[in-house]
Amino acid sequence: MKTCLDCISCFFRQALEASRMVSDDEALHKEVLQEVAKEFSNICLDESPPSVSRKIHKIVRDLTGSLDPYKEVKDKYNQMALGLYPQLREKVLNSADPLLTSIRMVIAGNIIDFGVGNSFDVEKEIKEAFHKEFATLDYSIFCDFIEDTEEVLYLGDNAGEVVFDRLLVEVIESMGKRVVYAVRGAPIINDATLDDARECGIHNDVTELISTGSDAPATVLELCSPDFIERFNGAKMIISKGQGNFEALSGEKRPIFFLFKVKCPVVAENINHEVGDMVLSRGQSFGLMGQKL
Amino acid sequence: MKTCLDCISCFFRQALEASRMVSDDEALHKEVLQEVAKEFSNICLDESPPSVSRKIHKIVRDLTGSLDPYKEVKDKYNQMALGLYPQLREKVLNSADPLLTSIRMVIAGNIIDFGVGNSFDVEKEIKEAFHKEFATLDYSIFCDFIEDTEEVLYLGDNAGEVVFDRLLVEVIESMGKRVVYAVRGAPIINDATLDDARECGIHNDVTELISTGSDAPATVLELCSPDFIERFNGAKMIISKGQGNFEALSGEKRPIFFLFKVKCPVVAENINHEVGDMVLSRGQSFGLMGQKL
Repeated sequence: MKTCLDCISCFFRQALEASRMVSDDEALHKEVLQEVAKEFSNICLDESPPSVSRKIHKIVRDLTGSLDPYKEVKDKYNQMALGLYPQLREKVLNSADPLLTSIRMVIAGNIIDFGVGNSFDVEKEIKEAFHKEFATLDYSIFCDFIEDTEEVLYLGDNAGEVVFDRLLVEVIESMGKRVVYAVRGAPIINDATLDDARECGIHNDVTELISTGSDAPATVLELCSPDFIERFNGAKMIISKGQGNFEALSGEKRPIFFLFKVKCPVVAENINHEVGDMVLSRGQSFGLMGQKL
Repeated sequence: MKTCLDCISCFFRQALEASRMVSDDEALHKEVLQEVAKEFSNICLDESPPSVSRKIHKIVRDLTGSLDPYKEVKDKYNQMALGLYPQLREKVLNSADPLLTSIRMVIAGNIIDFGVGNSFDVEKEIKEAFHKEFATLDYSIFCDFIEDTEEVLYLGDNAGEVVFDRLLVEVIESMGKRVVYAVRGAPIINDATLDDARECGIHNDVTELISTGSDAPATVLELCSPDFIERFNGAKMIISKGQGNFEALSGEKRPIFFLFKVKCPVVAENINHEVGDMVLSRGQSFGLMGQKL
């Protein structure tokens, strides 16, 4: 999906929020926004939003001198989610359809996204996700794919959310499948890195943990390592978690299932959904397969 | 009130919305935003938001070639408000306190503001404004001022809203007072100009209609005409309608009553109120008199 002119105001908001995470110095915040403004004095709309976002957050890191502005909030949400894990796991395992229930929980966790805003109510999301209708739910084909594959490549998204992903990963593994869980190659916004994934306990004897090798806030293939690209191209089934991964991969002709909550009006309009909608989609349900938005 | 770094993302949104009002050409929209980005590559935080907004909308007008991008929506809301006028007037006149009821109606009309967003429900606002508690209501001192003055200077805000202002203006005039109603000197966003004020029927034998002589989207004194400044400085009582006029005049030591709905989080934080709050304030209720925010 290409970046849209509506995204620009959102990037300024992100840059300001990120700067405030690491410093109270308004002169520094101003310097960051001026540099972001210089970046947009020559707007390129050919890249996906996560590619542009990567450049913006590099400006924040370079000027603030902080390698990981969101470190504190990532730790906070990792711990918060770990606190919820035992009761969520019990709910998943005791439900009529643990696979679908864990998918619902993944969507609930997908709210922990500092790229979209800085206030969210995780407990409320969990309650809602248990009952709300999916706007798109390609569940039977999802089940068929799991049935027919030995290994699933799972593209993670944000810190904290990893614990929710873990619920789904564990259900898939209980079906006798292997899961390879991929996270970002370096800190960007509150996206999960290898450290976050380990902290959230997704690393075990069964799940393999890998990195995309890139510091983009989504799986932007042009920026990923050759090792990751090989795993991506060889995967028989890919679960792409989060709106950012959808933005980056919506045009790819791979066996991808997009699993996310619609969180911004630009994406909503692109796929003819509403903000807040829950989506599990094989991609072609949006008419998107192989199509560059 | 000074412009805040949070305002910048809002200016980009405004510039994009204004460009889309006059053209479907995305290349032109992009050109506008690039120029806005150049403007912010050297951020000045000493001006009030309406002063900065004026520069942004000048860029839109210059690049799109449209002198009045919001002409169509202004006409639409003038007509819509005129359609509501007879029933609102009846409600005001039949109420226990027509002065306070017309103030409530002015607040309801204050939602018609394309500077803040492009979707609002006027009928819902009217219903709410009839019953909602004011967050700040300096009503007795407001009544005292009206009692003690012969002439009130009323600073208008947006097109369409003028009809709601007219309800209050007519109540004040029925108390034997004169009202001078001031509008912008040239089109900017959906702010009311002399044409809009006439279309909304506020011009009559009693009400005098004047212009600020400036194309800023609020009463930015440094940009107003000498004639207007003379009227402003000589006024014994000023009703400043709308959040923009509050942003521009919050630091002035004049007998101003600010009448507006709080519409953005930056202003809300500045005066320790919530977005959506209804305000009629003598200024010192925020500790603002003579203080540059």
